[in-house]
Amino acid sequence: MSFSPLISELVAALKCLPGVGAKSAQRMAFTLLERNRDGAMRLSEALHDAMEHVSNCEQCRTFTESKVCGICANPSRSESAQICIVESPQDILAIEQTSQFKGKYFVLMGHLSPIDGIGPSEIGLDILQTRLAEESIEEVILATNPTVEGEATAHYIGQMCKSHNIPATRIAHGVPVGGELEYIDGNTLTHAFSGRREF
Amino acid sequence: MSFSPLISELVAALKCLPGVGAKSAQRMAFTLLERNRDGAMRLSEALHDAMEHVSNCEQCRTFTESKVCGICANPSRSESAQICIVESPQDILAIEQTSQFKGKYFVLMGHLSPIDGIGPSEIGLDILQTRLAEESIEEVILATNPTVEGEATAHYIGQMCKSHNIPATRIAHGVPVGGELEYIDGNTLTHAFSGRREF
Ligand SMILES: [Zn+2]
Ligand SMILES: [Zn+2]
Repeated sequence: MSFSPLISELVAALKCLPGVGAKSAQRMAFTLLERNRDGAMRLSEALHDAMEHVSNCEQCRTFTESKVCGICANPSRSESAQICIVESPQDILAIEQTSQFKGKYFVLMGHLSPIDGIGPSEIGLDILQTRLAEESIEEVILATNPTVEGEATAHYIGQMCKSHNIPATRIAHGVPVGGELEYIDGNTLTHAFSGRREF
Repeated sequence: MSFSPLISELVAALKCLPGVGAKSAQRMAFTLLERNRDGAMRLSEALHDAMEHVSNCEQCRTFTESKVCGICANPSRSESAQICIVESPQDILAIEQTSQFKGKYFVLMGHLSPIDGIGPSEIGLDILQTRLAEESIEEVILATNPTVEGEATAHYIGQMCKSHNIPATRIAHGVPVGGELEYIDGNTLTHAFSGRREF
């Protein structure tokens, strides 16, 4: 026995969501059909609009539907002499929640991973290179994840900074090794920022 | 700091899914943007199409985009003299997976709950009444959930059957096969005892 074609397709499509297996996809499909068709329609539109229009900020590469994201478009931020390098847009949110950092960001959208064919240009380091050359940057804060790949990526960018005579620092204290930045609490992140050392 | 409007809206809309809170909605939104835009577009369409076209089977009330669902449209099923009453379309799936039942179904889409204003007509008992009167039914199997509301609903439908001189049976409640006695709740054990049969 199977569901009708449109319901089967909905269940299958819901499984594209991370962490959603067959059983919960089924539960979601029926709950929406039974109790929340307006919410499902809203989600349908939100998915469509976001996928259609969200691209990368021209300056920092974070996700935005504008040419330039809110932080890069904010003069008090973009004129800062500090630039913080993170792996993902969610890391920006985590750092912003500490209210400790007032500079600008650069989002790698990943990390170096030669084995997967992810080299410097895949994580936007050509764009970063240009920014290091053209902007007056006094400090690059390396806030990649404390994982093997994150460290290797930080090391690589640290070398880039050196060649431009820009001091690079690495966030350090409080971030558990092997942890992922976006899941760290704000207090730990605050410590990690204030305890950063020359890289 | 907040996300761009389209991303914020996507995160908010994802929270309409059962079991999805703020943190996982965020993770879903970024994972789709980063890695699975095709999947997200497919989900957007599947949601739209299902909400737009899926309604209730005219005969059994289960969800379908056809006038009559696959089971009701199957002559070998619809001509059966047995009708099984369940609370939700997912219960049909569970029963079908046993391959034991070859009759037809009737889906209440809930259970009686006077406190929430859910009376007989809200769970389709007017339609069931007509079917009991017009079809030649030899047995009504009451497969509502073994909860207070499910029992009350089964009791109510049992009375309806009585007035039509149609025998009604209730699925057995007891110790699940493979279950360990010591972990079974007392209420279930009581049912298991009172429902015991010659061995
Ligand atoms: Zn930006
Ligand atoms: Zn049907």
